[in-house]
Amino acid sequence: MLWSGWGDPAKAADLPEPVRELLASLLGVRPPAVPAAELGQVRLRPVALTPLVLAGLSDIVGHDHVRFDDETRIRHTRGKSTPDLLRIRAGDGSDAPDAVVLPGTHDEVAALLGYCADNRIAVVPFGGGTSVVGGLTASGSGFAGVVALGLRRMDRLVGLDTVSMVAELEPGLRAVEAERMLAGHGLTLGHFPQSYEYATLGGFAAARSSGQASSGYGRFDDMVMGLTLATPSGTLRLGRAPRSAAGPDLRQLVLGSEGAFGVITSLRLRVRPAPEVTVYEGWRFASFAEGTAAARLLAQRGPLPTVLRLSDETETMVGLAKPGELGAPSDGGCLMITGYEGAGEEVGAVRERAAAALAGAGGVALGAGPGESWAKGRFAAPYLRDSLLAAGATAETLETACFWSELPALYEAVRRALHDELASPLVMCHVSHVYETGASLYFTVVTAQSADPVEQWAKAKRAACDAIVRTGGTISHHHGVGRDHREAYAAEIGDLGVDVVRAVKARLDPSGVLNPGVLLS
Amino acid sequence: MLWSGWGDPAKAADLPEPVRELLASLLGVRPPAVPAAELGQVRLRPVALTPLVLAGLSDIVGHDHVRFDDETRIRHTRGKSTPDLLRIRAGDGSDAPDAVVLPGTHDEVAALLGYCADNRIAVVPFGGGTSVVGGLTASGSGFAGVVALGLRRMDRLVGLDTVSMVAELEPGLRAVEAERMLAGHGLTLGHFPQSYEYATLGGFAAARSSGQASSGYGRFDDMVMGLTLATPSGTLRLGRAPRSAAGPDLRQLVLGSEGAFGVITSLRLRVRPAPEVTVYEGWRFASFAEGTAAARLLAQRGPLPTVLRLSDETETMVGLAKPGELGAPSDGGCLMITGYEGAGEEVGAVRERAAAALAGAGGVALGAGPGESWAKGRFAAPYLRDSLLAAGATAETLETACFWSELPALYEAVRRALHDELASPLVMCHVSHVYETGASLYFTVVTAQSADPVEQWAKAKRAACDAIVRTGGTISHHHGVGRDHREAYAAEIGDLGVDVVRAVKARLDPSGVLNPGVLLS
Repeated sequence: MLWSGWGDPAKAADLPEPVRELLASLLGVRPPAVPAAELGQVRLRPVALTPLVLAGLSDIVGHDHVRFDDETRIRHTRGKSTPDLLRIRAGDGSDAPDAVVLPGTHDEVAALLGYCADNRIAVVPFGGGTSVVGGLTASGSGFAGVVALGLRRMDRLVGLDTVSMVAELEPGLRAVEAERMLAGHGLTLGHFPQSYEYATLGGFAAARSSGQASSGYGRFDDMVMGLTLATPSGTLRLGRAPRSAAGPDLRQLVLGSEGAFGVITSLRLRVRPAPEVTVYEGWRFASFAEGTAAARLLAQRGPLPTVLRLSDETETMVGLAKPGELGAPSDGGCLMITGYEGAGEEVGAVRERAAAALAGAGGVALGAGPGESWAKGRFAAPYLRDSLLAAGATAETLETACFWSELPALYEAVRRALHDELASPLVMCHVSHVYETGASLYFTVVTAQSADPVEQWAKAKRAACDAIVRTGGTISHHHGVGRDHREAYAAEIGDLGVDVVRAVKARLDPSGVLNPGVLLS
Repeated sequence: MLWSGWGDPAKAADLPEPVRELLASLLGVRPPAVPAAELGQVRLRPVALTPLVLAGLSDIVGHDHVRFDDETRIRHTRGKSTPDLLRIRAGDGSDAPDAVVLPGTHDEVAALLGYCADNRIAVVPFGGGTSVVGGLTASGSGFAGVVALGLRRMDRLVGLDTVSMVAELEPGLRAVEAERMLAGHGLTLGHFPQSYEYATLGGFAAARSSGQASSGYGRFDDMVMGLTLATPSGTLRLGRAPRSAAGPDLRQLVLGSEGAFGVITSLRLRVRPAPEVTVYEGWRFASFAEGTAAARLLAQRGPLPTVLRLSDETETMVGLAKPGELGAPSDGGCLMITGYEGAGEEVGAVRERAAAALAGAGGVALGAGPGESWAKGRFAAPYLRDSLLAAGATAETLETACFWSELPALYEAVRRALHDELASPLVMCHVSHVYETGASLYFTVVTAQSADPVEQWAKAKRAACDAIVRTGGTISHHHGVGRDHREAYAAEIGDLGVDVVRAVKARLDPSGVLNPGVLLS
């Protein structure tokens, strides 16, 4: 993973010329005055941990698995939000951990947590490093230091129960590797968020991830049948049945806890047969309102495609639904992508019924072209963002979910907030996940970088978050809370809700070393 | 509701003669030596609350809504488990609350909780009174008294959002009344547990209920989009979207909390169009193993019927799947009931595909007869139990869920435990709820009453619970924890899990007045 941006540097994509022209003429984007820092130029604090403490960490995981060289520290600094990238590109390594420790087993994780609690060392559980909400930016204030607890050595498929269709997997396993392992057994998880190529299973669980095919395969939290959580106070082992009436579902308390309660060391996940057939196609609707009504119809009356995604007029015009064709002329209206995965006969039947419903709701079938183009570019947007940043534009996303009846007002309120705060931004939106009672909205914003692009975006983001809270949406449908959404999250669950989360944390992490400043301030 | 048994006394059913003969000859059941107590014979403790305290309660809810006459106290004593009925039929009113208070609003509930916390009065939230796990048997020890907080006045349909398909309903509304109200709008919740005719929505939420049609409509916890919880520490208002990544899902912490954290005063529930068509039919499988494999096939490969229920050989033989035809000769093997509800065309398509899958898995179609017979008797089993108790038999149920691969061993272990503890019992079982990764098992046990039938059953139940815990199942799929499953629940979530639940309770109910002894000991 590129330390200052996304993914494999070899895959970096230059912006097409029409896009460059559009940025310059429409948004007034100018190349940045200062070039991005080189790795060697990133400013780091000295390692705060004493040699004695570093030796103590080595005693637990072995000397090779405690790293505090500059490059390793930089590669574990913050996540991949646009402000994160702007900061690291400006050479700001101030949030770097003092060391990175790499446990290989549950017992090593448990021992590390005990040691860090005893020595007042803050711990940042680190999977793929793809957080876009500040989930990896722990506060070291009041601590002897900060270690990133890298989970990449815990990357095994531990067991497979093909009768129950449950796989036991380790948290540091990257989704793309998990899919490769499961494919060998004819199976899939079916979880494909945009971070798919780098994110880990533990991260999906800790942050309540949702993927592009979640309409068909369910959210990640739907897949978690069981989990093990190492905490400074001991180990929680949860999940004896798919569903239970034995008290509150504590699995659902760990999911979304973002490393603040403990470190997930094992996951038992529902798997499915790998699809025999995958079909992606496009539909055009005259307006976002009409397309949204059609999406709601499928969500409430069925059948629901495996993938259902509807771009608004702006996103359709710019072509962002198909990053591979960015800037290509659109046919107007709003583009919907529908995808079907499964056994051949079933896909045929579902697709036929869905197509009839969409046509009845005013959709015009565009065939497989747009669907295939979307599928080709479905993990490419983060690369595109890197190119935009380099060109002098700020590009960032934010997302929410709400009940259907609130969706039009929420959509307008967020757009207005962003337009009010930023000078002529490009604000695009799509519905990416639908439920019977509501849907998510995913906004992408592109604007010319000001002299202080971090503060520029912070102001705009605050305004957008205020709009979300005010109009009744949740502050995140799938990115999580991190540091960036703490205030909105607190407003969402209220003071008493915050106190409940604090009470759980105090029990599991009494010294407060786990991801301090994340989830709760 | 009959104070000493189930439901409407006018609907009480005498046992058919073949059943009486079977009980006598096979199980050695003899009529009880002592007749059941009359209402006036139930022994009650004097009301422990002082006139001053009673006046304080009246100040909050009004004089008419504080009751402490004998009959009202008896009608709020314990729930409807077989031990509960055996005790009350023996005239044992020792667990009666000192008073029953009937708030009409959220604010009155909140005020009552504050008052009871200040005055160290234990509070038992009371909906339909149908708990079968001791969920209404609070411990008054160390308290100034016990009040049952009856929710029956909070029975309104507060709002209906037909765009989002969400209804706001009050917790004291009985399910049967909720369905009547929603039917006026062409809608349904689709939640039909055996307690349907008496249980309330708040009780479903507090106990994580699952219904006979949950394969199609989902469990009750799937339906809860939002809720309001009054606690002695303030009010929690949760649920701003169908699903969220904003931290742990606190809704899932309240669901299943069984009145130990607070009182649910409002629910926002997902509703669906009332079905145009309902079809129930029967299938015969050669064995429980074969039928289970077929059920698993539908759960994992689809399509899943709205109702899917498979009786084992014994339950099929006795005819308990069709209480209206109890004792009628069976065709052998195992009876599966499949039900389909929805729009006409959809029902037809799903039914056709499911039928093909079932036939392919060895099922023999029995047509609509057994399905209709099941549907006719689907809420009748509790009446049947009353008749069995009166005849001198103990009849009780217990249930669990596990992953598919563990199901055969769990089934055998529970059967063995019951056979070991009871002299020639009749042990019947059915799979009532299926998931992709597992299923529930629901056992019905009939045996001759010993001289101390409460202790007799307690011993057998303990053995069955031990078997469940030992073989990896959850202690309850839909009945809940109550007092009866506390130890098994603690074993299931472990000491640290118990501590987490305690920490939440301590924050929301610091004086511990809420349903003491329920969920946690």
